[in-house]
Formats: sequence, C-alpha cells, structure tokens
Amino acid sequence: MPIDLKFPFILHGGDYNPDQWPEEVWDEDVRLMNLSGVNVATVPVFGWGNLQTSEDTWDFGWLDRVIEKLHAGGIRLCLATATAATPPWLDAKYPDILVVERDGRKRKHGSRHTFCPNSENFKRLSTGLTRKMAERYGKHPALLLWHVSNEYGNYCYCETCSVAFRTWLKAKYGTLKELNHRYNMSFWGQTYTDWSQVEAPQDLAQRNFQGLLIDYNRFQSESILGCCKAEIEVLREITPDVPITTNMMGTFKPLDYHSWAKELDIISWDSYPSRSAEPAEMAFRHTLMRGLKDGQPWMLMEQTPSQQNWQAYNSLKRPGVMRLWSYQAMAHGADAVMYFQWRRSPGAQEMFHGAVVEHAGRSDVRVFQEVAGLGAELARLGPDTLGGRVKAEAAIVFDWDAWWAVEFSSGPTVELQYVDGCLDAFRALMSLGITCDIVSVDADLNQYKAVIAPTLKMVKPGFSEKIGSYVKNGGVFVSSYFSGITDETDRSFSNGYPGPLQDILGVWIEETDALAPGEKNAAQFGDLRFECGMLCDLIRLEGASRLATYVKEFYAGSPCVTENSYGSGKAFYCGTRLDREGARHFYGLVADAAALSPVFGIAPPDGVEVTTRTAGDKTVHYVLNHNPVPVEVVLPSGSFTDLISRKLVSRSLTLSAYGVAVLK
Amino acid sequence: MPIDLKFPFILHGGDYNPDQWPEEVWDEDVRLMNLSGVNVATVPVFGWGNLQTSEDTWDFGWLDRVIEKLHAGGIRLCLATATAATPPWLDAKYPDILVVERDGRKRKHGSRHTFCPNSENFKRLSTGLTRKMAERYGKHPALLLWHVSNEYGNYCYCETCSVAFRTWLKAKYGTLKELNHRYNMSFWGQTYTDWSQVEAPQDLAQRNFQGLLIDYNRFQSESILGCCKAEIEVLREITPDVPITTNMMGTFKPLDYHSWAKELDIISWDSYPSRSAEPAEMAFRHTLMRGLKDGQPWMLMEQTPSQQNWQAYNSLKRPGVMRLWSYQAMAHGADAVMYFQWRRSPGAQEMFHGAVVEHAGRSDVRVFQEVAGLGAELARLGPDTLGGRVKAEAAIVFDWDAWWAVEFSSGPTVELQYVDGCLDAFRALMSLGITCDIVSVDADLNQYKAVIAPTLKMVKPGFSEKIGSYVKNGGVFVSSYFSGITDETDRSFSNGYPGPLQDILGVWIEETDALAPGEKNAAQFGDLRFECGMLCDLIRLEGASRLATYVKEFYAGSPCVTENSYGSGKAFYCGTRLDREGARHFYGLVADAAALSPVFGIAPPDGVEVTTRTAGDKTVHYVLNHNPVPVEVVLPSGSFTDLISRKLVSRSLTLSAYGVAVLK
Amino acid sequence: MPIDLKFPFILHGGDYNPDQWPEEVWDEDVRLMNLSGVNVATVPVFGWGNLQTSEDTWDFGWLDRVIEKLHAGGIRLCLATATAATPPWLDAKYPDILVVERDGRKRKHGSRHTFCPNSENFKRLSTGLTRKMAERYGKHPALLLWHVSNEYGNYCYCETCSVAFRTWLKAKYGTLKELNHRYNMSFWGQTYTDWSQVEAPQDLAQRNFQGLLIDYNRFQSESILGCCKAEIEVLREITPDVPITTNMMGTFKPLDYHSWAKELDIISWDSYPSRSAEPAEMAFRHTLMRGLKDGQPWMLMEQTPSQQNWQAYNSLKRPGVMRLWSYQAMAHGADAVMYFQWRRSPGAQEMFHGAVVEHAGRSDVRVFQEVAGLGAELARLGPDTLGGRVKAEAAIVFDWDAWWAVEFSSGPTVELQYVDGCLDAFRALMSLGITCDIVSVDADLNQYKAVIAPTLKMVKPGFSEKIGSYVKNGGVFVSSYFSGITDETDRSFSNGYPGPLQDILGVWIEETDALAPGEKNAAQFGDLRFECGMLCDLIRLEGASRLATYVKEFYAGSPCVTENSYGSGKAFYCGTRLDREGARHFYGLVADAAALSPVFGIAPPDGVEVTTRTAGDKTVHYVLNHNPVPVEVVLPSGSFTDLISRKLVSRSLTLSAYGVAVLK
Repeated sequence: MPIDLKFPFILHGGDYNPDQWPEEVWDEDVRLMNLSGVNVATVPVFGWGNLQTSEDTWDFGWLDRVIEKLHAGGIRLCLATATAATPPWLDAKYPDILVVERDGRKRKHGSRHTFCPNSENFKRLSTGLTRKMAERYGKHPALLLWHVSNEYGNYCYCETCSVAFRTWLKAKYGTLKELNHRYNMSFWGQTYTDWSQVEAPQDLAQRNFQGLLIDYNRFQSESILGCCKAEIEVLREITPDVPITTNMMGTFKPLDYHSWAKELDIISWDSYPSRSAEPAEMAFRHTLMRGLKDGQPWMLMEQTPSQQNWQAYNSLKRPGVMRLWSYQAMAHGADAVMYFQWRRSPGAQEMFHGAVVEHAGRSDVRVFQEVAGLGAELARLGPDTLGGRVKAEAAIVFDWDAWWAVEFSSGPTVELQYVDGCLDAFRALMSLGITCDIVSVDADLNQYKAVIAPTLKMVKPGFSEKIGSYVKNGGVFVSSYFSGITDETDRSFSNGYPGPLQDILGVWIEETDALAPGEKNAAQFGDLRFECGMLCDLIRLEGASRLATYVKEFYAGSPCVTENSYGSGKAFYCGTRLDREGARHFYGLVADAAALSPVFGIAPPDGVEVTTRTAGDKTVHYVLNHNPVPVEVVLPSGSFTDLISRKLVSRSLTLSAYGVAVLK
Repeated sequence: MPIDLKFPFILHGGDYNPDQWPEEVWDEDVRLMNLSGVNVATVPVFGWGNLQTSEDTWDFGWLDRVIEKLHAGGIRLCLATATAATPPWLDAKYPDILVVERDGRKRKHGSRHTFCPNSENFKRLSTGLTRKMAERYGKHPALLLWHVSNEYGNYCYCETCSVAFRTWLKAKYGTLKELNHRYNMSFWGQTYTDWSQVEAPQDLAQRNFQGLLIDYNRFQSESILGCCKAEIEVLREITPDVPITTNMMGTFKPLDYHSWAKELDIISWDSYPSRSAEPAEMAFRHTLMRGLKDGQPWMLMEQTPSQQNWQAYNSLKRPGVMRLWSYQAMAHGADAVMYFQWRRSPGAQEMFHGAVVEHAGRSDVRVFQEVAGLGAELARLGPDTLGGRVKAEAAIVFDWDAWWAVEFSSGPTVELQYVDGCLDAFRALMSLGITCDIVSVDADLNQYKAVIAPTLKMVKPGFSEKIGSYVKNGGVFVSSYFSGITDETDRSFSNGYPGPLQDILGVWIEETDALAPGEKNAAQFGDLRFECGMLCDLIRLEGASRLATYVKEFYAGSPCVTENSYGSGKAFYCGTRLDREGARHFYGLVADAAALSPVFGIAPPDGVEVTTRTAGDKTVHYVLNHNPVPVEVVLPSGSFTDLISRKLVSRSLTLSAYGVAVLK
Repeated sequence: MPIDLKFPFILHGGDYNPDQWPEEVWDEDVRLMNLSGVNVATVPVFGWGNLQTSEDTWDFGWLDRVIEKLHAGGIRLCLATATAATPPWLDAKYPDILVVERDGRKRKHGSRHTFCPNSENFKRLSTGLTRKMAERYGKHPALLLWHVSNEYGNYCYCETCSVAFRTWLKAKYGTLKELNHRYNMSFWGQTYTDWSQVEAPQDLAQRNFQGLLIDYNRFQSESILGCCKAEIEVLREITPDVPITTNMMGTFKPLDYHSWAKELDIISWDSYPSRSAEPAEMAFRHTLMRGLKDGQPWMLMEQTPSQQNWQAYNSLKRPGVMRLWSYQAMAHGADAVMYFQWRRSPGAQEMFHGAVVEHAGRSDVRVFQEVAGLGAELARLGPDTLGGRVKAEAAIVFDWDAWWAVEFSSGPTVELQYVDGCLDAFRALMSLGITCDIVSVDADLNQYKAVIAPTLKMVKPGFSEKIGSYVKNGGVFVSSYFSGITDETDRSFSNGYPGPLQDILGVWIEETDALAPGEKNAAQFGDLRFECGMLCDLIRLEGASRLATYVKEFYAGSPCVTENSYGSGKAFYCGTRLDREGARHFYGLVADAAALSPVFGIAPPDGVEVTTRTAGDKTVHYVLNHNPVPVEVVLPSGSFTDLISRKLVSRSLTLSAYGVAVLK
C-alpha cells in the first residue's frame, strides 16, 4: 500500500520559507521548482511569527499568495501547522511557555522548541493556529498532507511539569509505597512520604534513581506527544481525509517514536548523517523509521542537497552522493525524497546550510543540476516503485525504554551506547546481504526466522514469555551482554542476569568485567580468533554450549559466546562486544542456524547494498554502490530491466562510483 | 594498644542496608554472613528516611528486628547515626538546609550530603535522630562502636555560611585592617571597609585572594566538623563508653582530617583505588590515615569486594587482589577489613557497585568465596596481630593548609599537585624498603631520623624553628621546590624563598622556571643522570653544597639538588621534580645520611612490600606480593611462622601471584 | 612626530602599586628605580579602594606621599584614573553596577572590570574619582600622561543593557521593520513586533541571528568606550594639555579598537605573548596597535620582565629575550618600554607574576640586572630614535566587525579564526622582509602598493568601490576564502560570493568544501605543490586566470588561486588556506606584481627581523635576531653606526643569540 496521497508519484521537493524573500523571488522559485522536477513544497514550517503578529492579529495574505503561486505552478503542498517556534510577542505575554532547562535555568525568548509541553497557554495558542490553518487551507486542491510542527524534542523541567509529572505517576503507580518500592527509594533513605516531594529531575535535584529518570523521559515524551496530538485532534476534526505526519529524527533519544507512530498516518524523517557515517548507519535509521508503522512506505522529509552548517566541519556531498543517498532511502521504503531547504536563508543561523538554490540563485551549478537530474529520474520511476514493501526474514528489537535504561546506568562502563549494540548486529547482517526489520518489543515476531535483541538491559513484562514461545516453536533468538538486568522500572531481577531470559539462553552471568579503551580480549571460535572488548561477561553454562572462548585474563578459557537449544529453536548469547569481523562471523553462524537468505543469494561486494521492495506482484531490486570506485555485482539468474537506464541486464551489473540501479 | 572494642578479633564485615529488601531476605543475610566469616555489620547508614518519616513520626520497628536477627546470628554492630542523607520531607520543610553550590546554584532535594553545615535546622534534626539512636540502642550488647554520618565533605556557599564566616573571621583576625593586610586586599583595590562585604567565595564572587580561599576551606572543614561534633556530643553524653568513628576518604582535599581526628576515638576510612592505582598510592593513603591518631590501629571501613560502579571503566578485582589489598591495609595498621556493601542494591545509583552478595544471592561464586576464604583466615589471625603498631624511622610532613595553598596558587604551573610531591617521596622510600609515617606539621618529630616536607609552600609559625632545632640536634631534613613561599595566610615571605627555611637549607631561590608537559631537563648526580621537569628552581648556594646539577637550558651547570650541614644534622633541598629513578637515587642518599634501615635489611624485590607491626613483645611481618607472578623474597636470619599457612619458613619465601605471608 | 610628552626620552618604567607595601619600602623603590634606569611609573591603577573608602570619604594622603617621593627621585608619572576595579563598599551600595554574565548569572563583588558599562551609578562614581585625581594632580610637574582605567573589556548582559541596546537599535535602524529585515528575523518566525522584545543575547536568549550578535558586540564596545569617554571628558576639561591613553590588549576581540583610538591621544598596549608565540605574532600585534593612529609612535605599557603567572606553564624569559622583545616593540614604533609590574605583590592573584623587583627585593639578580642594562641602553638611544615612523608599502586590512561576523558564523567550519587568516599574510610578507601596515577598512589605501584583506566575510558599504578604484588605478589587491559573503548586518549578498568583490577579482565561488582537521588538499603552482586545507572554494573563473590548481578530490584540476587584471592593477584571490611555504610562495608572487621591496633589499635569514623607522631625515634600522644562536645578516651598501654598541658596521653584521642592533 503506497502512502495514500491520491498523488501517484514519488514526492520530490522540500522545505520552502518564502517569507524570507520578497514576492518577486517567489515567481522565480516556482520556475526553478519546475525546472528541477520538484512537485511538492513544505510551507510554512516557521511561519507563526508572520501569520499571527499578536494574539488577535492574523496575516494570512502572504501565505495565500504563496500557495496560489505554487498551485498555479503544479506544486503540491505539505502544509505545516507552523507551530515549531513561538513568536516573540507570545513568549513575552505568556512567560510560563518558556522551558526550564535541565540545569534549572529558565530560557528567555529565542530559538525554536522552547515551549513547555505542559503549558496550557502553549496548547491553546498552538491549536488556535492549527485551527486557522486547517479552516483556511484544509480544502485547498494542492494540499497533500499535514506536517505538524517540526522536529519535536525538547524536554522541560519547570514546576508545571513537576505538577503534571506527579499526576502521571499517581495514575501509573497508585500509591507512593509502590513508587518507593519500584524505584528503590530506600537507597540513601530517600523514601517519599508525600507526592509533592517528587520533582522534575533537574541537575541539582534527584538524579540518583534510574527508575525516576526513565519515567521522566517517558513522561516528557508523552507530554510532547500531547502537544502533537492536540494539533492532530483539530486537524482530524476539520480535515478528516488529509493524512498527517510530523518529521522525526531517526535514532533520536528523547522521544519514544514507537508510541508516537501510533498517532500519525505517515512516518517522515530528516536524515543528516555525520561526516563519518557509514552506509550501515544510514540504512539502520531508515529501517528503524520504516518499522515504526510496520513497514508502510515513508517520507524522507529532509536531507541536505549539498552540505550542512551545524557540524564542526561541513564537507560537500560528493557528486552523485546526494542521488545515491536518495535512492538508499527508497531502497529502504521511502516514497518521497525531499530537501532542507529549497533556497538558502539570506541571513541568520542556517545561512550556510545547503539548499537547492544557493544565495546567487543560479541553476547552472552542480547542486541544482544534480537535484534536477534526480527529479527527472524520479518522475520516470514513480509508477513502478511506489508502495513497495521491504521483506525481511530477521528482526532487531529496538526499545526506547531499554535505551534510556542502558544509558542512565551508573556502571559498569561509560562506553555503553545502546544504538551501537543494535548497529553492530545490523551491520553484520547487512554485510552478509541479509535484510532486517527493526521492531518494537511489542511487535509480532512470528513472521521472522531470527530475532535479535542486543543490550536489552530492560526486559519488560511479557517479553521473555513471547521470546520463549517463539524459540520453542523453532525461532532463532540472539541476546548479548548487558541484557536481562532490570524490569520495566529498572529494578534488577532477583535471579541475576540475564533475568527472565536465563532459561531460554541456558546461561547465567556471574560477573561482568569492564575494559578500558584500548584494552582488548579475544574470542576464539574454533580456529578463528577475533578481538573483543568493552564488557566481558563471565558466563556460567546452564544448558548452553560454548561457541567461543575468552583468550586472556583470569577468565581465559571460559565461554564468551554460547548457543542453546530450546524447544525446536535456538538461542544465542554473546557476552562481549566483538569486533566487526567477529560480529560478521557470529551472525554468519546465526544466519546458518536460521536459514536466512541474502537478497541476491550471496553476500554483496563490500560497500554494495541490495534490497528488494514488493508491491503486489511488482518486485523491484535496488542495487547501490557506496564505493567511490566502480564495482561489479553478480545478479541472480534471469534478466532485469534497470528502471533508471531502461536497459536490460543479466548475469552481472557494473555500477559506476556511487552508482545505482533499480532492477525490475 | 588495639582498637578498644572489647572484641578481640579482626573485624570483618561491611555496610548493610536491609531496608532495601523484604524481611525474609534478612534471615538469609545472617546465614550468609556466618558462612563468610563476617562478624560485624554497619547499619543503618542511610536509614534516616525510613526511621523518621516526618518530624514527629518515628519507625524503629524494622531496625529493631534487623538488629535482633544480627545479634542472634552473632554479628556485632557498627551502628551508624544515619544522618548522611536527609529525607525528602525534611528538605521540603526546611529549605535552608539545602546547600548553595560554589557556582551559586541552590540544590533541590536529592543525593546525600546536601545539607548546609551551618544550618541550625540541620543540626537540631540530625542530633535529634542521633539521640534517638543512642537512647534506643546504646546499651545493646551487640553494639561495638558508633559510625557518625558517612563520608562527610560537601562545602556550602549560602548566605548563612557567609554570615557564619564573618563571625569566624572576626574571631580570628580581630580587625578588618588585619584581615586586609593578611590577604593583601590592596591588590586590585579590594580593601574591605565593613565585615558585611565579606562573602562566601562563590565562583562569581571574590576568588582572587588565596588567603580568603584557604580560610574558607578551613571554615568549611570546621563547620562540617561542627556537625560531626554535635552528634558526638550527644553520643558521649548517652553512651560514654562506646567508641566513635566516622569514615574518612584518604587524600580527601576538602577536610583537614588532622583536626577531625582529634574528635574521634577510632580512625576509619574507605579505600577505593582507581583502576591505575599503584601499591604505593594505596600504602600512602593507609599511612596518612594511620598517622591521624599517632599510629593507633584503624579500620578499613569500606572497600569493594569486586568492582566499583562510579568509575568510567569498572574492572573486576582479579582473583586474590581483594585479599591482598585487605592484608595491605592490615600491614599498615588496620585491625578491621570491611566492605561496601553486603548485598547489591536492587535498584538506583549503586546497583552495579560490587557487593559480597550479588543480585542473584548465590554463595557458590568467586566473590563470595574469596570473602569467605579471607574471613576464615582472619578468624585464625586475629589474636596474634591485633593492636600491632608500625614502626617508622622517617616521616613525611603532610598539611592540608599547604595543600590548599599549593593548589589555589595562580602560577607558576597548573601541574603542581600537592599529593604527588608527597607521594614521590613515599614511593621512593617504599621502593628502598623503608617504612614511613605521615604526620602533621604539629607532630613531635624527634622520634624520627629523617623528616621530609615536600612542596611545603605554606610554612606556619613555629615550624621552621622546630625543624631548625631538629636538624641542629642531628636530624636529617628534606625540602623541595615550591616550599617556604608563604606564611599561614598565604602572604609571601619578605626574604624570598624558601622563606624561613633558607638558613637551615643554605639556599636561596632566585627564580623558578615552569616546564610544559613533555619538556624535560635532567639532574646530573656525579656519573648518574636522571630526567627532571615541571619546575626548575634556580638555586643560589648560601652555604649548601651541590648534589646535582642541571644539564640543559640557560641554567645548565647550576645546582638543582643540594645538601647543607646545619648543627649536627643535614638538610637537603631538591629544586625540581625528579623522575622515579632519580627520586629513588636521591632518597637513597638521604637514607644513607640518616642511616635509615629497610625492613628486612635490604630493598625488597619490585612490587613487594614488607612492613612490621609490633604489639608489646609480639612482632609480625607482613610480606605482600603485588605482582601478578610469583616472587622470591629473601628473609632476615632466623625462622618465622607464616600465620596464614601455619608453616615454618626461613632464609627465603616464595609468594604466589598476589600472594601474602604474615610472619611471626 | 614623537609622542608629545615634553620629555624627550624613551619611557622606561612600569606599573607601581605602592599601597601593597609599607612606606619604608617606597624609598627603597625609588632608589632601585634610579638604579635600573626607570624614568616613569604608572600609579595607582587599582587605587580606588584605598583612595575612596566610602562614597564621602577620601584618602589621598598616601598617594600624595608616593608621588612626592617619585618626583623627588626624578621619576615621571603615568597617572591612572584608578577606576578599573570597584571597591567592595561601592558594589554593596549600588548592586546595579555588577554585570550579568552572558550565561545570565549576576556577578557578586570581586575581581576587576565587573561593572556594567551602562550603569549610571558607575559613570557618576568613576568620573567623580577621575575629577578628584585631575584636580589634585593635574598640574603636578611630574605628570606626563593620563592612563584611563585599565584593560577595558567585559561585556554585560543585564536589563539596563537591554534597555540601552533598544535605544541604540532604534537610533540605528529607525523601524523594527528595517531591523527585522536586516537580521532576517523571519527565519524561524522570530519577527519582532515591539522593541521591548529585543533583549541582550544571553546564552539562553536569542543567539541565532548573527546580525543581532554583531550589533550587540558593537553596542557593548561603544558602551564600554562610553565609560572611557566620560573620564576623558573630565580630564580634557581640567587638564586640556595632558595627553591621554588607556592600555589596550592587541588582538582583543571584544573591543573595536579602531573606534576607540579616535578618542585617545596615545596608543598603549600590554604585550603578553603565549609560551608558543612566534616573532610574527608579536610583530603582528605591534603593527595592529601602531595602525590604530596612523603609525604614530606608541607605548608598550606592560610586559613581564621575567614570567607570567596566569598561563598554564609559565616559563622564564630566557636571558636576553626581554631585551630583544623590548627592541622589537621599538622596531615597530614604540617609544616606551614598560613593565608589569615594578614589585611583586606580597599576596593574592598575581603573587607569582614577574616583576622588576622580586619578593626578596634584591638587585643582584638576573632579572633586575637585565632591566637595568636595558635602561642604560635606552637612555643612550633616546634622542636618535624617538618619533620615528615605520614606512610600509603593503597594508593588511583588519576589521573588528568582520572578525565578529566570521566567528559568529554557523558553518562552514569551526576552525575559521579571523586573526589566523590575517597573520598568515603578515607572516609570509615578514619572512620575505616586507614591512606591512595593518589598517582599518576606512583607511586611505592609496599610499600602498598592495592591499590584502584576508577572510573579509563582511564587506561594508563603500569598501568594494574603494578597492575597485584603487585597483583600477594600478593597485594590487589580495582577497581570500570566506570573503564577500555578507553586508554590514551580516545579510548575504544576493549575487553570491565574494559579493561586490566579484567583478574586481574576476571569480565567483560556487561552493566551499570544509576539510576536517588533518585532511588536506594541495595547490599546484606550476612545478611547485603546497599543502592546503580548512576550506576549499570551488572557483568559477569569470575573467581571472588561474595561478594554482587543486590536486585532490572531485574538484582536482579546478583553480584554487587566481589573478585578475582590473584596470591598471591586479587582484588576487586565494580560495584555500595554504601552508606556510605555500603562503610565502603566493605572497612572493604578489610582491613581484606590486614591486614590494624588502627592507634591506633581500629577504632576511630565518628568524631575523629588520625594520626601519624614519623621523624627518633621521633613519634608523632595527635588526633583531630571534634565534637562540648567532646569525650573520647581510647589510645594504654603505656603513652604519650601531647606536647600542656605538660601533661602525658595514657589509654584514653578526648578531649574537637574541642579539639586537640599531643601525643609523
């Protein structure tokens, strides 16, 4: 099922902030959009200040004119509710709106996302603007979808939040006694005796109880989602048929996107890989976003056409790379390729952020030409690729609560990064040519041959039972170090680690050694030896057999990777962080056990990525060369049409540097 | 004289926080304590919140039951006054109790040691709890000693403290004129004209006057001691016969433990060496703590049985290391070996801190077994070793005021660390097999053949006279760079450096060069050359003769280490920081001059430590192998019984990796 | 024209803070000043607290006595207005005086320069003291000049400043509409609708608009200058004939010294090179300071005679280096050589700052002897060297607004440092023996053969027209990467980069790549190849020809350095940061094009600096050897007298390590 936009083309466009230029530029913008194959514009993401100039004064005239020009030029609208940054008059009039930072300092006006998510004034005013937008433009023929706010995510630690947090906690725990027990408030004698004693965990307040900190994250994620839902409610009331999205940020820690996704019609996200990002990292984030709504096609809402401005050193995307990365998003399920932003700001913070149209406004330049080239390709591709689903035999479990639990831990090592553990598994499988999904702990796992839950410190109720029955019925399960330590309130399991997973995995962890940076052990798998480090679990086999053994330290000779038969399935445990080669070897064993198949039957060459999207009886393969040199890729039997070049290929395919093929 | 506890055994036990578990676990705890040779438990260090649930509501029932179970199981009590962390209701009711941090921000409730030491409310409430504890449990047959609060040490910079500080200053200086003179307030024209102008030196207040900063440290150390003394007063009133301790933290900068020690009956401290700590650092801290009460046996109140949680990378103690380090404490005068903590917290900040009993509660594990093994050994050793004194021929002078003076200095180098200078001397002597004491500037030095005062920037009244007469009478004295600069209010001496020590040392320092990290000079001692750096004094000989000479820079050829005959004694000056080999060589010369003797007559092998404790006619030698490999140690003539193995040894002894012998 | 002090000698002296010592020391000070050739003392820079002990209580007695002793000893006065640090009573009485830091925290009393520059109370009280000083000492025969305050420079972010800032902005922009446009406030919808919404840009307020940030710097620089001008006004009223200075700090970012210089009679500055400073950096700062008043001789107001205390590692100045650096200041136009400070503070923050007289007060020491030696030399030199002007054929344009604009930029790289770009050019020319001026964007450029404007991101109105006509008339102009991006309010030029300089330079910059640290490209100049990095402009030639070409990346082969003929002149553009050898090569080409001549006709040996000062028909050459080894310098034809040694030299000259010759 494609994104239901009644517009059967791949979306190609981007953020457009016309209020930064005089009207004569708007005509030129539409001309250039047409020239570059842009068919959609996101407006007016930060328009609040120019649309509502005081609580009772509105100015929609300029936006009306912009929209008419776009519409006349055939450009569709991704219409923002424009509530992401509050205007100066609003912060001045309602100072309760401004957040208190975690360090206890209250913000003054300035920047975006500075609103307290529990401020009633903010909710009233932001939904007021949303209502105006929906009433005015809800029936506009160019309107494709709603874009609520923008890149939500700032936490607040003000007194309003403290009060709301207490209400939230009362609803969750019922009694203080229960809360004291779950958080282990007897530690340091911090037992609460009155709800009023619970405060937002500012830096100089209570930050010694992980249960409290995790709950505060949950509460803030929900509170911010509350702002989003308040706008959605208005939109659904007025324009029940227009789909709704808000742009997400991939592996963004503050917001539990699994709960957010339930409220949205379409997933969209903004991809800004760091200078050193590898293809696997980008693929990981695309896959995570795709998984938020069970694989439904999604939108790449923002990417830079050329360079960023807020990293330390902002390199240019090399020729072909923007195109390659656009196809990578599509390879992982995107049906939209969009940019931030259409035209460079004439001044202020993002003046040096890349844009389709640079300050000089010329179209005879590399960046514009690459955008226009891609636009032309996408226009041709659309009907054949839209709506395809990526099929995966393996799933990685990803859980925001576990993320918070892992990274709030005091000990055993500051090096633990939840995403890294998940990425290790993803990268290893990707290098083997195996496609993964990334799913929540609540997902139905029975569709997968293998399920991997790295570093799952927190195991929530029902999960181990689900895994147990999954494995009993023949599934393959993989767990790793720092898993099964705590329950959903971050209390340790009383049977040690990995808690309720022990029986399934057939191991018990007696101790865990933390290695300093540069300190290494090694894992001996038969004749093969791989470096490992960070954490080394001292594993007691309680039914499992060893796959690999430590080579150094007093625990040399003891098992570090194990395998357990459980019912008709198998459960693997990896008690240390393997290096990349080691992880590839280990996941090769897992893939064998689960009979996972590479997309083209064999592992692709280094730096080449292959995925398949299927819609009904249409199957399309994306073949991406991330290498800066040409590469030859062996194809399965049969012949294919490259939908880009429109050529027939068979047996093998040579991709140029950063080259792409879309095979049918 | 042993610690007078009417309990003639080495104490073996640890912190026990039973209120974090249900009562059925308490029975299991007592069973496991017996199994592991534990004979003492420290309760309830953080019990305040569960003992006093509002200002007028008390609940001692649970503690009564815990104590009865322990007593029934033969476990003695190290009974905490439980005042180290304030409960939430208390901070909410009396917000004046919460500290203002040096950065000017007031804390909110949370964490421990967040009380202003000058808060009258805190003193009233903390002594109120102490009184209840003393009245209720003061006559309990299991009670061995009182443990006041826990790890004191947080400074406060609130207005209450400012007011109290002014009173303290008035008492000390009498007039503002005198204070202005001593602090040199004419600098930058900051002369005070009214006492009310003096404020706690917050970061954004007055921090340019070292005299003021040092006085504020003195004032805070005394203020915090005031909280401790207030509790002690109550305890002495109600239980005059029960000895009192509070657990210290070794080289802990905020508190002048020399003045604290006077108020306590027993010294105890918590040893948490960092991952990279060497044996000499641990020995240094044990020796410092022993010196606080003239060598009286002391208690190792806390150490982790396995790993810590609050360092960046928390490695496991290797097999045998916990035992070795326990014996090292005893080798330096401890009569108690205790752990933090008995059972791992089920949740919150210290969930991953090592404990005797891990989350799974099993006793068939390495850590528990090592504790139990040590417990069995200690039970056998007790009567033969208790109460022994360590005899030292040399003393290192250690002064908290000088520490503060050195590290508040603006120039000549940020690398100056007071403890490092003292440790350099200690390490060199230890490597030569020579036992040291570490004493205050007020100590009687006549019992020592050599006295070493490294980096003694601040020389307080009377000290130079004492050293002068000590050397005249045949003593050997050693001074080093950055000594004799200022008086007790950090005013420079008007005769240059090293101030009043010039005559004794026979040198005058014309200039001092500061070297950047990695920059080195060298000291030429006859045919031997050693690297030196950090600071290079340009020494004018005024009576002294040179022992070593600089090799580089424009001062090449000028003296860097000197020796002076003064009366019947000798005074050495080392004007630069020598590397380890150089320091060993230099202290070899000092040892020769003072006729200091190694414990077994010769320097021990690398990584081997030997000390002697004597009680009456009982002499016991501790021989410790810090190496991860076996080592052979040559013994003096005669034969010895190893009190651990109960075997006779003579001539030499082979210690296993991390091995220990206790020879009688 | 010499500094008009009616005192025809090189000034030699320094800061003297007598109120830190008893009166008997003052007599000794005068004796030692005479012994060391000191002829001027700066008093009482920080005397406020001791001169005015409450709002109505004055004590000038001690200063009267100090001044009489100095006068009797023949020492002239550089008389400070003593307003740099507020006394405690004043901050206590008028808390509005204390600044609010950028992080939003209000200071408490302590330190210097803690006053809000817009505080009316501060202005009233500081000019009150100035008036007293002028009335009391304005006719004193020893008075040479006024020294207003000291090292001005702290910004304030308080509400008073916010209010004053709004007034300043109203005067500048007239309407909010104009301000909104210039700052591009539509970005993120932050359009102001009322002046009251504009606030001082504290860290947690509005910091996303570079135009606002730059204006706030301008406003603060002017506000602080306002404090200085208020004092100057009083001094000019009472002592119209006494020249006025305030001591500056070289490349000091917060203050636009070009606008400050207009208010002063004499430029003076404090030179504290860091441990790693090279001769070019010191020369650069001397040259910048000289340029503030069109080359008029200036005063080296402070330098340390031996070592500093506030750097991390404070090395001693090697023998001869203080003398060498003193002559270097003179070589670049100084007619005064002065120290901070005369005598070391007995205590407090600067106790370890070098001084002519150390704590011990001895004169038989290296530092004192070097000062006295230099004093004797200067006394001989005076009449021959005073008032000489340095003649330069090339000028580097330096602009504080551009500095702020460059370093407030968000992107493309955090490595951009405005001063580094200017210093690259200066160093290259200095290594070629070519003397530069450093001038403001408002300077008359017609006197120069070449004008260099590195990294001139901001091009203010009129500048490009001036450069255009300068080049048309035969001048040589050099521009570099990150130039011509924005106008005076930091709005981008709508024709792309380098904005209005495009036509002159004959280039247009399509994109700019930012390289990570360690990442390098190379510039190929004919057969020569030099490393380059940081930024790489992708240059489109629009009339210019290429001088060098990139060697790597996708833009290999495209031009990186260009040359354009424009009218009778030439314009060079360097689109990347060349390494030192590359910069030397490039500026060699520029020098050839502009026919710039080295001082002695050829480039001097490495580490040797040569300058010429001319007063009327007197021409003096300064030849400085910065090397720690002797060096031979080839002289132009003719013979010279070395004014120091009084020897005749010709053909060549051998300078000792750190040696100096002053040739007539």
